[in-house]
Amino acid sequence: MESLMPFLDKYKRLVNSELERHIRVNTNEGRLQNAMLYSILAGGKRLRPILLMATIEAFQKDARKGVSVACALEMIHTYSLIHDDLPAMDNDDLRRGQPTNHKKFDEATAILAGDALLTLSFQVISNAEELTSEEKVFIISKLSAASGPKGMVDGQMKDMNSENQTIPLEELENIHKHKTGDLLKFAVLSGAYLAHANEHEMSEMTTMAEALGLLFQIQDDILDVIGDAEAIGKPTGSDEGNYKSTYPQLLGLEGAINQRDHYGQIAQNSLHQAGVNGTVLSELINYLSQRDR
Amino acid sequence: MESLMPFLDKYKRLVNSELERHIRVNTNEGRLQNAMLYSILAGGKRLRPILLMATIEAFQKDARKGVSVACALEMIHTYSLIHDDLPAMDNDDLRRGQPTNHKKFDEATAILAGDALLTLSFQVISNAEELTSEEKVFIISKLSAASGPKGMVDGQMKDMNSENQTIPLEELENIHKHKTGDLLKFAVLSGAYLAHANEHEMSEMTTMAEALGLLFQIQDDILDVIGDAEAIGKPTGSDEGNYKSTYPQLLGLEGAINQRDHYGQIAQNSLHQAGVNGTVLSELINYLSQRDR
Repeated sequence: MESLMPFLDKYKRLVNSELERHIRVNTNEGRLQNAMLYSILAGGKRLRPILLMATIEAFQKDARKGVSVACALEMIHTYSLIHDDLPAMDNDDLRRGQPTNHKKFDEATAILAGDALLTLSFQVISNAEELTSEEKVFIISKLSAASGPKGMVDGQMKDMNSENQTIPLEELENIHKHKTGDLLKFAVLSGAYLAHANEHEMSEMTTMAEALGLLFQIQDDILDVIGDAEAIGKPTGSDEGNYKSTYPQLLGLEGAINQRDHYGQIAQNSLHQAGVNGTVLSELINYLSQRDR
Repeated sequence: MESLMPFLDKYKRLVNSELERHIRVNTNEGRLQNAMLYSILAGGKRLRPILLMATIEAFQKDARKGVSVACALEMIHTYSLIHDDLPAMDNDDLRRGQPTNHKKFDEATAILAGDALLTLSFQVISNAEELTSEEKVFIISKLSAASGPKGMVDGQMKDMNSENQTIPLEELENIHKHKTGDLLKFAVLSGAYLAHANEHEMSEMTTMAEALGLLFQIQDDILDVIGDAEAIGKPTGSDEGNYKSTYPQLLGLEGAINQRDHYGQIAQNSLHQAGVNGTVLSELINYLSQRDR
């Protein structure tokens, strides 16, 4: 088994250089390009690309088959952060310890940089040399569904609507299922698809991906309570300030930790059922569950 | 030759009903869906979809081959209007005589409705039953390029940067080439592609589309000076208020009219060269040149 850290590092470097290349090739020099590069190269964990490539590798295929899709996915994730940070949305000044896009540039530039990254993501997939036309169409259909008005955008809309009120656990899970979960799920399922997983394996990976999405969000909420602001790169306690419902609020801190570990077990069990336990994916689940930022 | 008005009417109704169907099927009921429908059904001329379908028909193929692409194109046009109207961008309160999206809803909803329409456009193409995988990939590659960071978004960024200054004619044409022209060009070229136009025809249609884009923008600027505010649905003279450079400013009103007609002749000549003169496309060029809104 390849161990986790060298894997993370190798694919993070590959994705970083490909992301920068795609933007430089497909944009003109100037303010728009600068704003896109600023947010894309702001030091994200590249969790979604790595999850996609780790899934391909878990099924013993070449992870590079997923590199364009991984870049497209990270562009969509990054655009969503830029737009979510805007004053009309979450109104955040800091992201990963740096000024948010609209603070570094201005609101108009941030809106357009987000629009450009979203559009470029589909361009990158449609031009990917390592994919067949059928694969491109399948991936674009799934990625647009995951990030569109029944996916991530709907989750963000519902998240905005639920501010300043306490919502039931079921509704909180439904928001995160779409806002964060759908892109994580896409990462796993597109990886399994590109690795030619069979129907049984796809079904188990779906269960795994849904559990992983929830686990990831619960840990996010836990870190907002107990995390180190410097490690996270933004002030902790911000959910409370915005009057957002969180898992620790609804379940208590210990309850939230138990819930997180419950989903961790579901995810690991699904890996076992899909025959890909003991891979870098298992370690990745543990890592995401225990991460401190 | 089919005459223009029944053609416009027939395809406008088809596109309107398909646009509404796509949104209802691919969104959940609620605020996001309402905001998307509000702007999509706000009574646009459906110029780009009609141009696309008229091009297919000019080459004597079935225009319905282009209906999903036409809807996707109109979704992208509509998202760009929603985002351009935002306070951080052009800060417009009215669009087609109605409150702009962020005035009717709020800024966060308008940003998300735009994001959702942009994403949905690629979903609609990837799921279109009338297209092959190869056609979908070609169309997505061209549409993302036309609307992305070297296309429409770049034009909008440059337009923002040029506010409050007089710019040379060449730069003005370059802005409009991307901000308005690239989507119009896509409409013509994707129509010709779907109608299996040959290389010579594609080259002539490219010249036609570029002339049409400039003609369209010049007429827009002319209407801003001499148009009837009620017919246009927004206050005239607004370019002057925003200190934007326009053709009448740079060339005088008569000069702008001459320039518009010059491009009209280029467009008609290209139709002739491509062997599709005397079609509804010729009439459409005249109509766009003389339109009063």
